[in-house]
Amino acid sequence: MTTDENLAAVVSTSQGDYRVIVGRGVIDEIGPEMSAAGLSGRAFLIADVAMFPTAVHRAHEALERGGFATNVMTLEMNERAKNMDTVLQVYEWLSTHRAERADTVVAMGGGVAGDLVGFVAATWLRGVPVVQVPTSLAAMVDASIGGKVAVNLPVGKNLVGAFHQPKLVLQDVAHLDTLPQREMAGGFAEAIKHGLILDPDLLDTFEKNADEMQSLESDLAVRTIRRSVQIKAEVVSADEFERGDTRVLLNYGHTIGHAIEAVSGYGEYLHGEAVAIGMMAAAGIARRLGMIDQELVDRQRSVLLRYSLPVTVNGVTADALIEATKSDKKSRGGAIRWVLLEGPGRAATRRDVPEELVRDAVEEVIEE
Amino acid sequence: MTTDENLAAVVSTSQGDYRVIVGRGVIDEIGPEMSAAGLSGRAFLIADVAMFPTAVHRAHEALERGGFATNVMTLEMNERAKNMDTVLQVYEWLSTHRAERADTVVAMGGGVAGDLVGFVAATWLRGVPVVQVPTSLAAMVDASIGGKVAVNLPVGKNLVGAFHQPKLVLQDVAHLDTLPQREMAGGFAEAIKHGLILDPDLLDTFEKNADEMQSLESDLAVRTIRRSVQIKAEVVSADEFERGDTRVLLNYGHTIGHAIEAVSGYGEYLHGEAVAIGMMAAAGIARRLGMIDQELVDRQRSVLLRYSLPVTVNGVTADALIEATKSDKKSRGGAIRWVLLEGPGRAATRRDVPEELVRDAVEEVIEE
Repeated sequence: MTTDENLAAVVSTSQGDYRVIVGRGVIDEIGPEMSAAGLSGRAFLIADVAMFPTAVHRAHEALERGGFATNVMTLEMNERAKNMDTVLQVYEWLSTHRAERADTVVAMGGGVAGDLVGFVAATWLRGVPVVQVPTSLAAMVDASIGGKVAVNLPVGKNLVGAFHQPKLVLQDVAHLDTLPQREMAGGFAEAIKHGLILDPDLLDTFEKNADEMQSLESDLAVRTIRRSVQIKAEVVSADEFERGDTRVLLNYGHTIGHAIEAVSGYGEYLHGEAVAIGMMAAAGIARRLGMIDQELVDRQRSVLLRYSLPVTVNGVTADALIEATKSDKKSRGGAIRWVLLEGPGRAATRRDVPEELVRDAVEEVIEE
Repeated sequence: MTTDENLAAVVSTSQGDYRVIVGRGVIDEIGPEMSAAGLSGRAFLIADVAMFPTAVHRAHEALERGGFATNVMTLEMNERAKNMDTVLQVYEWLSTHRAERADTVVAMGGGVAGDLVGFVAATWLRGVPVVQVPTSLAAMVDASIGGKVAVNLPVGKNLVGAFHQPKLVLQDVAHLDTLPQREMAGGFAEAIKHGLILDPDLLDTFEKNADEMQSLESDLAVRTIRRSVQIKAEVVSADEFERGDTRVLLNYGHTIGHAIEAVSGYGEYLHGEAVAIGMMAAAGIARRLGMIDQELVDRQRSVLLRYSLPVTVNGVTADALIEATKSDKKSRGGAIRWVLLEGPGRAATRRDVPEELVRDAVEEVIEE
């Protein structure tokens, strides 16, 4: 096992507790970490082809060294491929190798890999253990923790999925060295979101250390990822199935964000970019409702811009975005549940937001 | 709610407790029963087209009368249709109607309906509530209870699925009035199995009252269904995820049974028929291992024959059946976990069964 220094959080769920490890080079410890998590049998490493060959080989070797006979599959992992056809392809591969309930699926890649491979693990033989090895910043601070897995349907994103908690989340910061700058920014959007909704100190850290944060050599960056991971872990432990009022807060910026992704076509905006714009729209709504003042809106815009994130969208209409929000799966009884800021590091949900007010706020984030 | 007289069992699971109601005409109470189970929102009734129009209309009316605005979809439900294409068709329909997390899916039909619609409910929006309304005897006494849901892949049966507990199981014995005799027999196979592995008194009841049991007007038949339901409910409550040594006992006869279904092509033998033959093969294995004597083998054969069940298979080879058992998902580390009788109403699992001994027992149930 890795030293406790790298242990960012322990997530408590109905499916058991699991460790989230964050550090440089921790992939080499995947074998002992999996054994410590009670896993044995074979490993089925399913990786984003973008991590091939170097990172995939290193993970493969670490698994074998740790005593896990390993089969490897690499796949194109992007929003367009995050569908049932790809899922069927992975089932086919698992079937060929007779993957069993005692074996472990290892998901290596960004958010798409975690979602898709996690969904396969949730449903193969009614559920097999999964280890998440997120390799993008967005997946590290957000998607890899909490067991939400899903794939897209032609009619909408993440409509099919499950809650399937991993047995271990292993985050090797070295994997970020090759991450394109734009994807790093997308990850910062989710991490900054954690500060905005739940942790004013984390928000301060992002504001005051933008340059240092974006250099991954910095210990501050690694510590800040760990802090962001902790927030996510606490939220998930408190509200595993998103039935309460806590986990839903993580959807800040996501109602309009999802609409932007759907209307502009998946892939045009990265998820984190769409969320950044969505957070700006949500801030506009909160300001119009008198929940926050213009200063916090400006402060949010400023920190997002410091991390090279978009704060406006182009090529879409307010009508199309608003229509798209109506099929968002967080709606209940037809009323959209908005996550809105009440102050720096504080958020709440509201259902009673007039559509005209939403329209005004949405128009404000659309480029002329 | 129905009277407590109709309450067969309460199943305790990590996803909450739920009632299993067994009685004649209880479908009319589905609305109050669903409300009592904490359900609200809309209902999406997905029924085997074989139940259309009379039974479907009656269920639809009962739902509406109970305050559940209801959409209805009917589908051909058979092993060949129990696949991902059909699942996608149901997702599409749910999407058209914007089915939400607060809504309830009602699965009405035999085992295929429960498995397929249950899997849709397990995965739509990461899981929505499902109510099981089994209309075949096999589904009543077995598949509708316990949350195991699945669909087939071209390479194997039930390879993709989930554990998704229902919120309510409502079994209207009147639905059996139109069930073909062959399917009734298939259901008796599962019910007799409960007696063989866990309840010598239930086995006696089946032996001594074969004629009366097969007339559904008899109160004894309804009480015996309730007893069989109770056994299943106790097993599920004790071992929800089939991790212990209890729930796996329900797979008695299923290793060879699944192999028969796979090798002969799904649909050639009903599931219960294949299980009956599989139980005869398993009894032959147990006898060869000295676990039981020939008398119990003959007693099992006799009771199965009394309920018009097959005890031998034709058109398949022992080699093909044994090969097919090796891809059975209950295997672990390659070794098949056999469920074998130790006596009337007592079963155990064994992993150390020599293949040659299995072959002898399998050959004994193959017709020349």
